[in-house]
Parts: sequence; structure tokens; C-alpha cells
Amino acid sequence: MTVDLSLYVLVDPERSRGRPLAELAAEAAAGGATLIQYRDKLASTARMVETAHAIRIALTGSGVPLLINDRVDVALASGADGVHVGQDDMGVADARRLLGDEAIIGLTIRSAEEAEAAAVELIDYACIGGVFATGSKDNAGAPIGIGGFAGIRQVFTRRWPRLPVGAIAGIDATNAAALARAGADGVAVMSAVTLAEDPRAAAAALKAAFVAGRPEPRPSRSDQP
Amino acid sequence: MTVDLSLYVLVDPERSRGRPLAELAAEAAAGGATLIQYRDKLASTARMVETAHAIRIALTGSGVPLLINDRVDVALASGADGVHVGQDDMGVADARRLLGDEAIIGLTIRSAEEAEAAAVELIDYACIGGVFATGSKDNAGAPIGIGGFAGIRQVFTRRWPRLPVGAIAGIDATNAAALARAGADGVAVMSAVTLAEDPRAAAAALKAAFVAGRPEPRPSRSDQP
Repeated sequence: MTVDLSLYVLVDPERSRGRPLAELAAEAAAGGATLIQYRDKLASTARMVETAHAIRIALTGSGVPLLINDRVDVALASGADGVHVGQDDMGVADARRLLGDEAIIGLTIRSAEEAEAAAVELIDYACIGGVFATGSKDNAGAPIGIGGFAGIRQVFTRRWPRLPVGAIAGIDATNAAALARAGADGVAVMSAVTLAEDPRAAAAALKAAFVAGRPEPRPSRSDQP
Repeated sequence: MTVDLSLYVLVDPERSRGRPLAELAAEAAAGGATLIQYRDKLASTARMVETAHAIRIALTGSGVPLLINDRVDVALASGADGVHVGQDDMGVADARRLLGDEAIIGLTIRSAEEAEAAAVELIDYACIGGVFATGSKDNAGAPIGIGGFAGIRQVFTRRWPRLPVGAIAGIDATNAAALARAGADGVAVMSAVTLAEDPRAAAAALKAAFVAGRPEPRPSRSDQP
């Protein structure tokens, strides 16, 4: 499935300022988010299914797909559009088998080695990171920076040129354009939107910043766009 | 699916004395366990799928089914026989829809109210508890005791007489017979087997104790077996 990664917003109850995630997701979509991910490392399964369902309802009519972090069971039970998996989550082959061909499956990639090993034929996009330092997730490794992003992206360019590749971690309106220039098909953000006073405006600002940095016409996947 | 609850052994890495869960499961089955549940509240999804798969392989040929606590995704990915869900886990209707008619689905019941509300037509068994105090799980409520067990079991006897009903929490070889006499179709145990020096012998002792308490012929589901 073709995925628009331009502005990928993650919602997580730990980074929501207590606001309902369905409301945050809807505001983000209204501000221009093209993809939403629900991440929750604390809630019970029952609560996750309930929350995912509420987000899905809130996104109805927006055309913005909802993915669930890690949990294929929650995606299936809630009718979400797919999952985003990390290297410690369910393997991509199992996830694809359980979710079917129509589901969206994304994968986090932290190194060139992981990009080489990734089952690119089974995923719909990859997110490379952590690009910058972030307070919203314990990242084992040091930030890879824009140069690191570009280097890992090269692996995908060679292996599977049409795979959308996003950047994740520590991204906000001040650095989104640089990632667009480095070849990112989109930016995945959490705090810059979900902790903002006005999540819709924050999403719109981020989207504008990213789009402004994106070369027109869209870059070919050559070394130097 | 007809489930034999006689000796239901839960394996959990937090209560394993560091031994591989696949080994514990195989030993328990060799000692007479009739059902195994893998419970893991800490591991990554990738690790859970791997462990579940290893347990399933270890049980091959034993005829003893493997259930996964809570996680339908792990059950599906590992080829386990079903899931056991609590009140905070995925709802039984969703689990049945995702796992299909052949899967085994069990439900924890903590009160007569929960027994009244349970979707008995969608589950294969219920476990009632916590019967006794236990160190292996944080139980919100006070232990219900054998009298509490018998009272809740009555609700199932009335609603769905053929549903196998087990007892859970704090059960060992000293009290298993009393639960059999109270009408339990089986006992669900963890520490009494998985923390034992010899899990196989511990399982055999528990099974013998339970079977000895079970009236012959098996009790009708009347008030006083």
C-alpha cells in the first residue's frame, strides 16, 4: 500500500498532557498529518483496544490511516490500518502473515546493518532514527544526525528505491526542512505536536516546514538530491 | 474445544528460577500437566513469540495444549492453541473473532458478577480466583477461599453447566484435593511446579492430590457433590 509519510504523528498517553489521544489524533490530522501511530507501553490490552478504536473513529473521513505500535492484536481487534514494528517487536514476516496484504506495516531502522537485513519486500515504509536526541523514548544508541540518516537511506535507495523512508526522533519545525533536503519522504514526530498547546497549529507548522524543504519536483533517489 | 483442566500449569520467566520455560513446560507435561499457559509481562513481543514457539516445540507429541496469557498476537504468530484472558485483556468476542472457532479461549473470573457477565458461549473454560493468597501475581482483591470458589462456580453451573471451571492462585498439593471436592474441574498452578526443585515430580504430586480429591464418578454440577 502506498503510504504518505510527509507528517507522521505518534500519539502516546505518556506524552499527551492528559488529553484524549483520539482528540490529539484528530487535531493532528486536521493540521495536515498524513499518518497516525498509537503507541502505548503501559496500558492493558483492553484499554489499548478501546483507545485504538476511539482514535480510528476520530479519524473517520480524514483519510489518514492509523497504525498501532508493535501490537498486531490491538490492530486486528480495533480495525486499525496496520502496525509499526521495531527491532524487538513481532517480526515483519509474522506481522504480514497475520495482518494480510492490505495492511500497512512500517519498520524502525537504526543502522545500515538493519537496513541491509530488513525484509523490504514485506514493509510499506521505513523510519530511520533516532536522528536527534529526544525525551520521548529511550533510544539505546546515540543520535545518528542528518548525515547518519542520509547514509542509511542510501541502503534503501539501492535495495528498494520506491520504499518511502521517513526520519524519526527529535524532529520539529526547526529541523524538518533539513531532513526533506536530505531525502526524507516524511518526518515522524511526537512531542512537537502532542505536547503543543495547539496540536493542530503545531502539525500545520511542521508540515509547512517539511514541505518547504522538499525539493520540487521530488528528488530522485540519487546521492545528492 | 474440550479442555482438560485437571492440572493447568502456568510458566512465567519471573517465576522460573532462571530455567528455560520450554524445559519447565515439558517437565510439567511429563509430570501430568494437561494444559500449559505462557505468561510474560516483561518481554518484548519478539522475545515472547520466540519463547512461545520454543514451548510449543517442547510440547510436541505430548498432546498438551499451549495457551498464551493475554496476547492474541503472540498466540497467532507462534502457533499456540489459544489464549487465556483476564478482565483487563482483550475482550473474549474480539479474541474469538481473531483466533477462530478451533482456538482455546479461557477467562479469569474473580466474582459472581463477572461470572454472570462472562460470554460463556465464547469461552472454553473459566478459572476462578484468586482462591488463596499467592506471591506470583498482584491480585487486587482478597482471596475468595474455597467457599468463594464454590459460590462463583454455582453461577456457571446454572448458566453453562458443561463449562470446565478451574481454580487458581495459591494452590499446591496440600489444598488441591479440597478444590476437587468443591467441584473444580482442575487446578491452575504456577509456583508449586515452576519453583520446585523437580518440576516433573511436583506436577505429578499435584495431579495425584487433585485426582484423589475428585469424587468418582465425577460429580454432577449439583450444589453438594
